[in-house]
Amino acid sequence: MATPAHSVDIDDLGARAETMIMALGAISAEPTRLVRRFLTPEHRRAADLVARWMRDGGLAVSEDALGTVRGHLKGSGPRRLLIGSHIDTVADAGKYDGPLGVIAGILAAAHFAKPGKSLPFGVDVLAFGDEEGSRFPATLASSAACAGVFDPARLAQGDVDGTTLAQALAVYGKDPRQIPAGAYPRGDAAAYVEVHIEQGPVLEARQRALGVVTAIVGQTYLAVDLHGEAGHAGTVPMNLRRDALAGAAEIVRLAEELARDQREVVATVGQLSVEPNATNVIASRVMLTLDLRSTLDESRRQVAERFRSEVRAIADRRQLGLTITQTRDINTTPCDPRLQDLLAAAVTRIAGGGEALRLGSGAGHDGQAMARLCPVAMLFVRCRGGVSHNPLEYASPRDMGLAVATLIEFIGNFDPK
Amino acid sequence: MATPAHSVDIDDLGARAETMIMALGAISAEPTRLVRRFLTPEHRRAADLVARWMRDGGLAVSEDALGTVRGHLKGSGPRRLLIGSHIDTVADAGKYDGPLGVIAGILAAAHFAKPGKSLPFGVDVLAFGDEEGSRFPATLASSAACAGVFDPARLAQGDVDGTTLAQALAVYGKDPRQIPAGAYPRGDAAAYVEVHIEQGPVLEARQRALGVVTAIVGQTYLAVDLHGEAGHAGTVPMNLRRDALAGAAEIVRLAEELARDQREVVATVGQLSVEPNATNVIASRVMLTLDLRSTLDESRRQVAERFRSEVRAIADRRQLGLTITQTRDINTTPCDPRLQDLLAAAVTRIAGGGEALRLGSGAGHDGQAMARLCPVAMLFVRCRGGVSHNPLEYASPRDMGLAVATLIEFIGNFDPK
Repeated sequence: MATPAHSVDIDDLGARAETMIMALGAISAEPTRLVRRFLTPEHRRAADLVARWMRDGGLAVSEDALGTVRGHLKGSGPRRLLIGSHIDTVADAGKYDGPLGVIAGILAAAHFAKPGKSLPFGVDVLAFGDEEGSRFPATLASSAACAGVFDPARLAQGDVDGTTLAQALAVYGKDPRQIPAGAYPRGDAAAYVEVHIEQGPVLEARQRALGVVTAIVGQTYLAVDLHGEAGHAGTVPMNLRRDALAGAAEIVRLAEELARDQREVVATVGQLSVEPNATNVIASRVMLTLDLRSTLDESRRQVAERFRSEVRAIADRRQLGLTITQTRDINTTPCDPRLQDLLAAAVTRIAGGGEALRLGSGAGHDGQAMARLCPVAMLFVRCRGGVSHNPLEYASPRDMGLAVATLIEFIGNFDPK
Repeated sequence: MATPAHSVDIDDLGARAETMIMALGAISAEPTRLVRRFLTPEHRRAADLVARWMRDGGLAVSEDALGTVRGHLKGSGPRRLLIGSHIDTVADAGKYDGPLGVIAGILAAAHFAKPGKSLPFGVDVLAFGDEEGSRFPATLASSAACAGVFDPARLAQGDVDGTTLAQALAVYGKDPRQIPAGAYPRGDAAAYVEVHIEQGPVLEARQRALGVVTAIVGQTYLAVDLHGEAGHAGTVPMNLRRDALAGAAEIVRLAEELARDQREVVATVGQLSVEPNATNVIASRVMLTLDLRSTLDESRRQVAERFRSEVRAIADRRQLGLTITQTRDINTTPCDPRLQDLLAAAVTRIAGGGEALRLGSGAGHDGQAMARLCPVAMLFVRCRGGVSHNPLEYASPRDMGLAVATLIEFIGNFDPK
């Protein structure tokens, strides 16, 4: 293995990353599960902890109008390398998805904050708060704001309790009018790089600690709202029912079948709620979400179109009221080839094993929004069993240490031009 | 029309019933929907209002260990005629299902509480609190206690928040050890009669205000708990998923198909909850309920057995963990022929139209529990469109007045022997 240009103690970095992962993972809305949603008291506590780490690492901390914590390391030139990930989680989450990228960014930037390590560009470490979409219907609000592509219409979107994003921001002490001011000027952002667990089984199967991401899958989210008629479970004959849940069951099966027909697409109905949700009452309303992903944009669009048309047919046949709302539609985001090569070289130097493995990302990431501002790159870290969005999620301290060291190597060789 | 033996002002009774229906219907856990679950603060307020009406009507009020409000009118003989219904509701309920029977009982008993109207038997008007099963998995706890068939194992059953029935009773100020003492001695209860809206379309279609119930359908409730594996919606290939919601969708469809095959059975999945219930997470767990009903006990049992075996096959094929719990199994309850005839005669005298219409009840009622104590009878009241378990539920004041007058006529001719 070649000696890295910026010599570091990989095991010490890994141990520090693990300690930080555990500290962030202890901040939750619930005592027995990790749940940390956007603009909640838990988000506040996590943001405060991240800000403290940034300050301890020698970064200048600020927070923007969407709650993104920004740790800045001044460089000798005007441009900035942005390094980020998110600190929000799904319900019953693992500890690594998101926090690892923020922690890796802080540890790497702190390395260059030491005396005598001046860089020819600034570094901003960004801790976004809205990547998972576990509170509001759309996601990536915080990274979209940094990228200058935040859609103000999203301020009116509500969470399950009917609180709008605008209201939640106000409770969090933020002023939505300040959102545009938080966008990076296009010339300032040289690149965006993110470290993240793979959330899939490829690196483990190939026995690699790290991988370079080639592209982030495109995604379509559809929200389906079915209206039937409540009725007594004992007195309404089967053929006179307008049962919203029976219709929803057909739709869940349809999503699965469409993805089995078109193999390069995955389709998931993960959220479904029933009204009035009582044993002896025919369901009057069901709301469900479809999550469609593919690295082939055309395939994803075809499946979405077939889904819409067949859902309409199901609703018509069952005399159910129907609204389908597209809450997300993001094309496949290619990672920048030059940045991929730079990351791949760093992986080879730090982790060895020859040419770095390159792979697609089946999960969405803040890089999808940041790609609208500047070239993006992602470094994947092996996670056990490919498990994610689950408390069993795990990355080893050694692998995390390798990731931080690779990021340091990448920064040291990065050219902001 | 023959002059009824106990002359009453039908329109006045109907107007009073409607006023009382509206007063009870205003007591809810929510501002915009009627929701009144067992042993909640709303139940307390409804029970207090019913107790006041009973006292105003000349009845002696007590409350048993399950919160059933009892209004007693003393008679010259030792036996009692029990008249009851329930004051709990489903979520987003109508105002008539339950309350009408309690109100009709109070108005009818009050008629006989007037000076000079002594009866050769006592009358107890019972306002039960647990008929809908909208809080705990099993139902009819309060009528089962009156009938002396309450199963103490039910005290350990929990609601959606994990509060057990025993805990809820304690919060309501009740002592479960007093439950057995509240059972009617077998010789004391001469009969149980209940007035209830039909909750179906038959009386309206036949243009009858009232009908005499021949039997109450048998019911089986099964709770299905499916365990899959949480996973990321973008990174887990379709063929490696153990998606609890996709399995549940097959089960919902199965229930519908079984009921379509066996036409004398109705099957409803009305309650379904998903964990973790997030757009981008494969469902790790789904809990759903099946409500099966038929007046043919054997058909109901056959469908339940087929359902169990096909659900097992679905879970096996999808590698899902499975628990099926039977939370209710009640055979068809025939109404007492002698009481049916007495009610039918009263219907003919009060409402006219010749021989009274007789019909089965597709809904469950407290009479199913009370039948284990004494002979039971039910009087059905026409409701608009057959709609029930729905805010659109409606019975006209005139029809309600006819029902109360019929009940008065029935009481006047009742022989407690």
